[in-house]
Amino acid sequence: MATGAQAADDATATDAETVTASVVGGTGFTGGELLRLLAGHPNFEIQQATSRSAAGKSVGSKHPPLRGSDLRFSDPEDLESVDVLFTATPHGVSMGQIDEYLDVADTVVDLSADFRLESEEQYDEWYDGHTSPEYLERAEYALPEINRENLAGADLVAGGGCNATATILGLYPLFEHGLLEGGEQIVVDVKVGSSEGGAGGGEASSHPERSGVVRPYAPTGHRHEAEIEQFLGTSVAFTCHAVDMVRGASATSHVFPSGPVSKGDLWNAYRETYEDEPFVRMAAGGSGVYRYPEPKAVAGTNIAEVGFELDPSNKRIVVFSAIDNMMKGSAGQAVHAANIALGLEETAGLEFTGLHPVGAP
Amino acid sequence: MATGAQAADDATATDAETVTASVVGGTGFTGGELLRLLAGHPNFEIQQATSRSAAGKSVGSKHPPLRGSDLRFSDPEDLESVDVLFTATPHGVSMGQIDEYLDVADTVVDLSADFRLESEEQYDEWYDGHTSPEYLERAEYALPEINRENLAGADLVAGGGCNATATILGLYPLFEHGLLEGGEQIVVDVKVGSSEGGAGGGEASSHPERSGVVRPYAPTGHRHEAEIEQFLGTSVAFTCHAVDMVRGASATSHVFPSGPVSKGDLWNAYRETYEDEPFVRMAAGGSGVYRYPEPKAVAGTNIAEVGFELDPSNKRIVVFSAIDNMMKGSAGQAVHAANIALGLEETAGLEFTGLHPVGAP
Amino acid sequence: MATGAQAADDATATDAETVTASVVGGTGFTGGELLRLLAGHPNFEIQQATSRSAAGKSVGSKHPPLRGSDLRFSDPEDLESVDVLFTATPHGVSMGQIDEYLDVADTVVDLSADFRLESEEQYDEWYDGHTSPEYLERAEYALPEINRENLAGADLVAGGGCNATATILGLYPLFEHGLLEGGEQIVVDVKVGSSEGGAGGGEASSHPERSGVVRPYAPTGHRHEAEIEQFLGTSVAFTCHAVDMVRGASATSHVFPSGPVSKGDLWNAYRETYEDEPFVRMAAGGSGVYRYPEPKAVAGTNIAEVGFELDPSNKRIVVFSAIDNMMKGSAGQAVHAANIALGLEETAGLEFTGLHPVGAP
Amino acid sequence: MATGAQAADDATATDAETVTASVVGGTGFTGGELLRLLAGHPNFEIQQATSRSAAGKSVGSKHPPLRGSDLRFSDPEDLESVDVLFTATPHGVSMGQIDEYLDVADTVVDLSADFRLESEEQYDEWYDGHTSPEYLERAEYALPEINRENLAGADLVAGGGCNATATILGLYPLFEHGLLEGGEQIVVDVKVGSSEGGAGGGEASSHPERSGVVRPYAPTGHRHEAEIEQFLGTSVAFTCHAVDMVRGASATSHVFPSGPVSKGDLWNAYRETYEDEPFVRMAAGGSGVYRYPEPKAVAGTNIAEVGFELDPSNKRIVVFSAIDNMMKGSAGQAVHAANIALGLEETAGLEFTGLHPVGAP
Repeated sequence: MATGAQAADDATATDAETVTASVVGGTGFTGGELLRLLAGHPNFEIQQATSRSAAGKSVGSKHPPLRGSDLRFSDPEDLESVDVLFTATPHGVSMGQIDEYLDVADTVVDLSADFRLESEEQYDEWYDGHTSPEYLERAEYALPEINRENLAGADLVAGGGCNATATILGLYPLFEHGLLEGGEQIVVDVKVGSSEGGAGGGEASSHPERSGVVRPYAPTGHRHEAEIEQFLGTSVAFTCHAVDMVRGASATSHVFPSGPVSKGDLWNAYRETYEDEPFVRMAAGGSGVYRYPEPKAVAGTNIAEVGFELDPSNKRIVVFSAIDNMMKGSAGQAVHAANIALGLEETAGLEFTGLHPVGAP
Repeated sequence: MATGAQAADDATATDAETVTASVVGGTGFTGGELLRLLAGHPNFEIQQATSRSAAGKSVGSKHPPLRGSDLRFSDPEDLESVDVLFTATPHGVSMGQIDEYLDVADTVVDLSADFRLESEEQYDEWYDGHTSPEYLERAEYALPEINRENLAGADLVAGGGCNATATILGLYPLFEHGLLEGGEQIVVDVKVGSSEGGAGGGEASSHPERSGVVRPYAPTGHRHEAEIEQFLGTSVAFTCHAVDMVRGASATSHVFPSGPVSKGDLWNAYRETYEDEPFVRMAAGGSGVYRYPEPKAVAGTNIAEVGFELDPSNKRIVVFSAIDNMMKGSAGQAVHAANIALGLEETAGLEFTGLHPVGAP
Repeated sequence: MATGAQAADDATATDAETVTASVVGGTGFTGGELLRLLAGHPNFEIQQATSRSAAGKSVGSKHPPLRGSDLRFSDPEDLESVDVLFTATPHGVSMGQIDEYLDVADTVVDLSADFRLESEEQYDEWYDGHTSPEYLERAEYALPEINRENLAGADLVAGGGCNATATILGLYPLFEHGLLEGGEQIVVDVKVGSSEGGAGGGEASSHPERSGVVRPYAPTGHRHEAEIEQFLGTSVAFTCHAVDMVRGASATSHVFPSGPVSKGDLWNAYRETYEDEPFVRMAAGGSGVYRYPEPKAVAGTNIAEVGFELDPSNKRIVVFSAIDNMMKGSAGQAVHAANIALGLEETAGLEFTGLHPVGAP
Repeated sequence: MATGAQAADDATATDAETVTASVVGGTGFTGGELLRLLAGHPNFEIQQATSRSAAGKSVGSKHPPLRGSDLRFSDPEDLESVDVLFTATPHGVSMGQIDEYLDVADTVVDLSADFRLESEEQYDEWYDGHTSPEYLERAEYALPEINRENLAGADLVAGGGCNATATILGLYPLFEHGLLEGGEQIVVDVKVGSSEGGAGGGEASSHPERSGVVRPYAPTGHRHEAEIEQFLGTSVAFTCHAVDMVRGASATSHVFPSGPVSKGDLWNAYRETYEDEPFVRMAAGGSGVYRYPEPKAVAGTNIAEVGFELDPSNKRIVVFSAIDNMMKGSAGQAVHAANIALGLEETAGLEFTGLHPVGAP
């Protein structure tokens, strides 16, 4: 993939182009991650980061990587015109503000769940009533690996859910290459870090209670099932567990194909699907300590690791996929989609390749 | 200070029955856990703890909870006659020593995989050739919840595998109460701590590499599948992940029953199976932070937590079970079985109820 | 299953003396720890656990080790007469209730800071104004190692601060044996777990922010300096750091003695001071992985580990001490003191010797 | 400091300049970190990464961030001519190879302890005998903040020790600005992550034993005292503790100045010393969760955070400093020094500003 050296070259090629960008909801974890990425991006120039509660404070007071930046949070009432607006507000907020957002910005990238689903019916099945359903069809899902062609020039982009992203990227090649017919039994068992819960806390996410857990949450009925079904065309039996890390989502999908599938079939499918993708990396067996996708190997990066094993005795394919939920699962995916929407270099600002060794990131 | 040895003295005073016990393989994690439990047990008096490499050293030099004990490791060549012998050697060792073990002890409790399976055919399918297959049928599986009646008076007891124990305890009521017919699709996704790898280390289990992982290992073909099949009568699709804790095994079983199953059916089955069990605790929903089985809630205890949810939209039962792999998953289970084999109080020496809050135990 | 309650029954049968005990402030971490210890204590019978917010709920809903207990939280207004009352309320509460507490109970053991200091002047220097200063002299400091003789028969016992306890136990032999004159430079650098912050949380103690920190807090002016000075007769330069564990406090004291001190002097002083103490364990060099005091080696126990090294080139003694802040640092120390105050076996209910291996407890 | 956007600009300015670089000892943690930095550096082109044991294997097999790179480990016997050679071998190796290294490379940056000290006497006092003492004076210490002027054009650069680096950066302004006279009592209490122990493991650094520790190691006589004394001109009483993180070193220095020092004096000293330094960031009080230097706030970056508090009642200055031991403490410092030695942009390849939130990195 694009190393830093290549990135510098690439960036240079497009360096003439500067795009103004603002972040609505700048104090949350996702907002901070967006600000960090935009600050290091060769094309974006941050115009505003809004926060009602922290208006006037420096962004570095909330986000240590931005210590030293002169930027201060603005009141959301004072939103200025901008080329791109990233909205990192809680679910349900941006659907009420979308007209204003599209008014001040040429391109809106919304990181909430508000515009992920395609129809009002789907939305109402999994969430509460949508107040701006007319935008659902207009919004483009941000995941470039399955929706790149529709992102170019899009004016409303809907960031995918982190667990859905990990799951879809793991399973997509099986469907894309006809190894599944649809209707097969698929169990998805996800492990996630505490940053998914967002800043703010609460008893269950306090350090004494949250440390060291293997805590089932949303054991059934997780809303990300809706996105997965929408893009794979089949339902999955989905269960999430909180484990002791801050960043990361790891999805293990247990798939029972209707017909015979060989390891060669799998390799062909995954290689063909992902060989040109700048942010997908295969990890399927081999030697060394990290033989399968590992959240800590992609922490801080926009990379999804994908791998698999075949279980002949159970006629099962086990698919592993790992992402950083804050990056490929939200802010990184959003910047990637914005790069495409605006015709910038796809990988601009997303070149970080991760750390080794690293603890529980 | 009040060492375990003194505690044993105190207890002895109130209990006529004293049983001598030795531990073969006393330096490993399981051996240390056995020694800790025996030292605090009201009936057992530790005679020897053997170790070839550490012979002559104090047991406290290896196991901090035993600091202050006068016991020193003995050479395994000098094994003395004893009432009960706990053998905590690597897989494959005790099958070669079993005649000697049964010679020096009235009751042998083996914690390796050597005598867990019932037939040579099964053993050869999952492990390498067995050198003492004639003992396979004679050995009684240590898990009292499914084999209590056969443990009383047994002279050879085979401790169960930790992951198999967690899985079996989770699924057993479904079979026991006829909610499954056998042949249903069952996916078991297990998360385990680093103590499963044993003392000694190696690159993959070094702290920098092992910290914070969600690492698939034995993604297919895990040997504990054999035990599960043996006791549940059906095969399961089994996958293990290493996560960032030291003690603990958490099994999430995704079950797709052939017919309709209600939440009431589940509650009835689990309650009836486990209501008189001293070491099984239900955790299925309810309020508070710990609504489902949680390894850290049972760390240091011999308790298995079991719970479930129903997923009507996927016609799925999700079963959660959590144990301390060092306790209910090995040393605690062994002492529990020995208590039954010898006619002692079942719960003797196993009363610790855990800590809260606690980190990543 | 064998709940703590049953355990207490069993124990009672073998011990004529039964003492009723209640806990005020039963939902907090310290309150839960007290309830856990009392439930497993051979002499205490829990009468009430009070909580305004959780009145009527089962104690197990807050404290997983007590799942299965029938006890429910009582309203603090309904406090009943009892032999011993443990008060685990926030600082400043019990000083306003102390008359009531002493009215309903023969012995009150207060775990807050309200009665730790001996004079109103001291209290006002470090805390806000005391509303019941007349009890300050009457209260006995709970740490038996330095105040055993005054605890017998005491009716008001003041539990020590956890960081003060670790520090005092580390340094006390140096003063007791005249190796220091007083006035020497002493730097105490403490590392503590997140349970010190109590249940409840807040942004700084949320898992994403608190994980993996080495966070200086109260870098100067920590209130525990007052207790240390009170009992050692000299001031220390004290700094605390939050590190990634839940339970535990580790104090490293850097001492610069006025005159020459040999390693033999140190061993003599520490051995003589602590050789008969049931809850102090020396760990000073030797072989193995745990050569010095280690919080995780004493997690869940009432044991303090103490050790030292001599640094001739800097004319320095480095003293290490480690405790479980929830046990020896609060609830365990309180039960130990109550045992002495009531003439019970000192170590009753406090025999747990810890786990190995264990993660970040 | 230089954000990514500036970096791209800066890099562009010097993009014409390409420098070949090799890494000796490429499989270790430090070697991997060097390779990662060089791969993302706008000027360096990696020529070789040597490893005897892994020759022929891909660098990505050892270092996940380099998965996808075509580079394979070379045999150290086949070392080729190169502009810069980074040597990341165990202590004692490069002193025996230094002639060869200087033969194949114009500039050698050694990351071991072999050339850190200025004289053979010093070296022999802290390490075993030096076999190439004639190079000790020639080597330039890599820390730019105290030795920038001598690094330009240097042909042999000696990377500093990680703990020494953290300590020196914390204390240097006090000496530079005359707030200390030398001879004052200084206690340095350091907390470090497990990556300091290097790849490979061993029992003490296995995950079950190393997790959650507050383990004193080298409680006295740590070799980094030598470097600190060399550059500050005074000895310090130094003690190290291993805590539960992988990356990071945090030094708390307790300083007892001879004369009065005000907070204003401190701010002036630290600001003047570091205001133009691209990789030093002040964190001294203020609001928010991260008020003082914090290793996890600088994980993955080349930034040192430095801060302080005044303790008037103990006439003490408490200085906090935090670095990523793998970056500012070794590989990042080495690249920084190489940038200066070669006349490149100082911050090239070192622009990463860290992640938030992040766990125990």
